[in-house]
Amino acid sequence: MCDPGGALLGGGVTSVMPFYPLISEMKTLLRTIDAWLDKASEHAKAKGYDVNLLLQSRLAPDMFPLVRQFQSACDHAKFAAARTAGKDPPRHPDTEQTIDEVRARVASVTTYLDGFTAKDFEGADARRVSMPRWEGKSMSGTDYLIEYALPNFFFHLTTAYAILRHNGVDLGKRDYIGRVTMT
Amino acid sequence: MCDPGGALLGGGVTSVMPFYPLISEMKTLLRTIDAWLDKASEHAKAKGYDVNLLLQSRLAPDMFPLVRQFQSACDHAKFAAARTAGKDPPRHPDTEQTIDEVRARVASVTTYLDGFTAKDFEGADARRVSMPRWEGKSMSGTDYLIEYALPNFFFHLTTAYAILRHNGVDLGKRDYIGRVTMT
Repeated sequence: MCDPGGALLGGGVTSVMPFYPLISEMKTLLRTIDAWLDKASEHAKAKGYDVNLLLQSRLAPDMFPLVRQFQSACDHAKFAAARTAGKDPPRHPDTEQTIDEVRARVASVTTYLDGFTAKDFEGADARRVSMPRWEGKSMSGTDYLIEYALPNFFFHLTTAYAILRHNGVDLGKRDYIGRVTMT
Repeated sequence: MCDPGGALLGGGVTSVMPFYPLISEMKTLLRTIDAWLDKASEHAKAKGYDVNLLLQSRLAPDMFPLVRQFQSACDHAKFAAARTAGKDPPRHPDTEQTIDEVRARVASVTTYLDGFTAKDFEGADARRVSMPRWEGKSMSGTDYLIEYALPNFFFHLTTAYAILRHNGVDLGKRDYIGRVTMT
């Protein structure tokens, strides 16, 4: 019987993870940011403020500002792909200060993600993912994707959305969800 | 060669989706809410306000209040499991008005999710998911999970977190991520 890693019948996390569809979904959602920023610019124009000021807005003084939320969402998607596929990602030094620079960052990361195919993630679960601040510990590719990269990605993306909404930018849930495959 | 549905080698969404690990992760994250609410109660006590007032807090007047964010996160996790497994979920009429009632709602949903095993999701991709307001259209189980249920779940969970943080509740990212599998 073909039941690789107990994917369908076993309990717990499987070794046949569809890394690629989840990475693709992150890419799709990152691509919605351009339209959010269009609406932010419209809002700034209508109200007469510099749209780049939004990038320093926070929901609490000890939370990251909008620009860092965008940078972090980009990073979690980029590293999710790179680390589980065992590749070195391009560096992004977090120097963005304008909306246009945020657009460029998002474009750079989504273009990087365009370079991946499902084949790049063969054996991704067997790959251990670690970071310096994890003090020698590591996660399996699957656990890293599901328990770490995905929740962090969505955390920063949604917080970015929330900051824009809190500032009055006219976004709706559809701007966040983007296109879905419906027939 | 064992390559079910082209899970590893093909492009695009695969038919061998690990529904169960993703449902489990949603359950894990829902279970972190109890600790958030502990911190909310501590904050209310220290500041001398009724903690239940937080449930009506919003980040923008045309966004849902906190209670609805919790209800929606619960619903997206519950329906993700039920619809992809082809089961009828329990009903939750959205009548919560207190923190204790929110705790009970979360407990009810996570207990419901405890009843699922990986085996319940056999053939989940072949199942079509539809809703009345989709006007006759439908999504595959996989697309529904990845493109709809998951982004919506995280959207509401993170917005709930953001509302609490915006009100001064002492949460940190670790309260949101919960436990991760690290060795």
